[in-house]
Amino acid sequence: MIFALVIGNVVCTRKEERLVGRKLLLVQPVDVSVGKAAGWEGKGLPLVAVDAVGAGEGELVLLVQGSSARQTQVTEGHPVDCAIFAIVDSVERDGKLVFRKSEE
Amino acid sequence: MIFALVIGNVVCTRKEERLVGRKLLLVQPVDVSVGKAAGWEGKGLPLVAVDAVGAGEGELVLLVQGSSARQTQVTEGHPVDCAIFAIVDSVERDGKLVFRKSEE
Amino acid sequence: MIFALVIGNVVCTRKEERLVGRKLLLVQPVDVSVGKAAGWEGKGLPLVAVDAVGAGEGELVLLVQGSSARQTQVTEGHPVDCAIFAIVDSVERDGKLVFRKSEE
Amino acid sequence: MIFALVIGNVVCTRKEERLVGRKLLLVQPVDVSVGKAAGWEGKGLPLVAVDAVGAGEGELVLLVQGSSARQTQVTEGHPVDCAIFAIVDSVERDGKLVFRKSEE
Amino acid sequence: MIFALVIGNVVCTRKEERLVGRKLLLVQPVDVSVGKAAGWEGKGLPLVAVDAVGAGEGELVLLVQGSSARQTQVTEGHPVDCAIFAIVDSVERDGKLVFRKSEE
Repeated sequence: MIFALVIGNVVCTRKEERLVGRKLLLVQPVDVSVGKAAGWEGKGLPLVAVDAVGAGEGELVLLVQGSSARQTQVTEGHPVDCAIFAIVDSVERDGKLVFRKSEE
Repeated sequence: MIFALVIGNVVCTRKEERLVGRKLLLVQPVDVSVGKAAGWEGKGLPLVAVDAVGAGEGELVLLVQGSSARQTQVTEGHPVDCAIFAIVDSVERDGKLVFRKSEE
Repeated sequence: MIFALVIGNVVCTRKEERLVGRKLLLVQPVDVSVGKAAGWEGKGLPLVAVDAVGAGEGELVLLVQGSSARQTQVTEGHPVDCAIFAIVDSVERDGKLVFRKSEE
Repeated sequence: MIFALVIGNVVCTRKEERLVGRKLLLVQPVDVSVGKAAGWEGKGLPLVAVDAVGAGEGELVLLVQGSSARQTQVTEGHPVDCAIFAIVDSVERDGKLVFRKSEE
Repeated sequence: MIFALVIGNVVCTRKEERLVGRKLLLVQPVDVSVGKAAGWEGKGLPLVAVDAVGAGEGELVLLVQGSSARQTQVTEGHPVDCAIFAIVDSVERDGKLVFRKSEE
């Protein structure tokens, strides 16, 4: 799974029937290990993910990709290859806290 | 899922039986976050996708890849790893509209 | 799905039992949008694909990858992650024909 | 499967129900063939993996990705695309030992 | 599927139960089209593969990746995303033999 920031949303009137009512969020994969100031933005293109946990803009989340993106309660059997399955509270690396949500 | 522009189509007389009658579209993955003028073209090679929603040339669409591409009503059980499952109306990033279909 | 040229073949006496009798072709992914003269060769490493439609050397084909490569009548249940499912007749981009088989 | 070092952990209070109680580890893919001193760090972004074998920080592990990450006893049916399925004791390359755990 | 050289092996005492007794080989993806002398080594990081055909060190093999790696008789239902399913005897490209096993 990878880290991403929720940076926006996507609206599609015409879409596969099974996805009607699903929130499509714009997410940007980020490298949390370098700290937010040093360049969380810009690791690859933004992706579109279905939200399975009620994430909001600006939150750091975890993405699951591929067939496993269909294993959340929200996405089962859907044509979905990217889902938000967790909102990150904190990340510890080499014994140091590199991200804590409440510090935002 | 990723963004792509529909840029053409592909004709194949000889193909897997289950795909007879399916429209194969030429699609170009794009980075919508930089705005269309700044270089939507050219993020990687063009792909071939099966259309599940009636997309037309020039439209911005969402692609689903891998096994999830077989979860649309049009592609179930087909040898297909890329499908168009939505036509994009608008994209909002950091609170700003970066794409709206009617502005085209 | 992606475009590839059939450039050769691979012979393996010792292989998974389910693949005995299957033709393994050497294929080179290509960028059809730039025209054949401008460099169809060399987009990434050559791959090995199982042929599901009777493709021949020199033909432009479509590859399906991942689990979807097992959805042809030839590859069901096989340890195969890349299959040729169509032979390309023509490709149109931005209203212009960029490839036609008979022009070869 | 690929090699990675366990470098930290991730805490998420809000997450898909099926993952409650699962340990999420921060792992860094590494190139073991060049020896640890020469630069095990930094081959791509860190990933988040579910631990299926009780791995600890600083250990060299093997990651399985994609749908196969759901084939451990800990991850079956979970929205998980990356799992630790083995702790590496030793790696031999061209007849030479390039890694042994007890040498750490 | 892709080509790789078997370059070593990996020993793991602690691993997912279903993999106990399975040989884990160190494999290096290679570009066979350029000839062995010109640089078969070094196309990406080495991977770890489960051997389904009795491959030995120094042999050129074919790897199947993703969920299809679980379709050999040795790997069914295992947390495995890379398997050796064939040992290469010869490769022909553009009508020329670029690899023959007995010439080694």
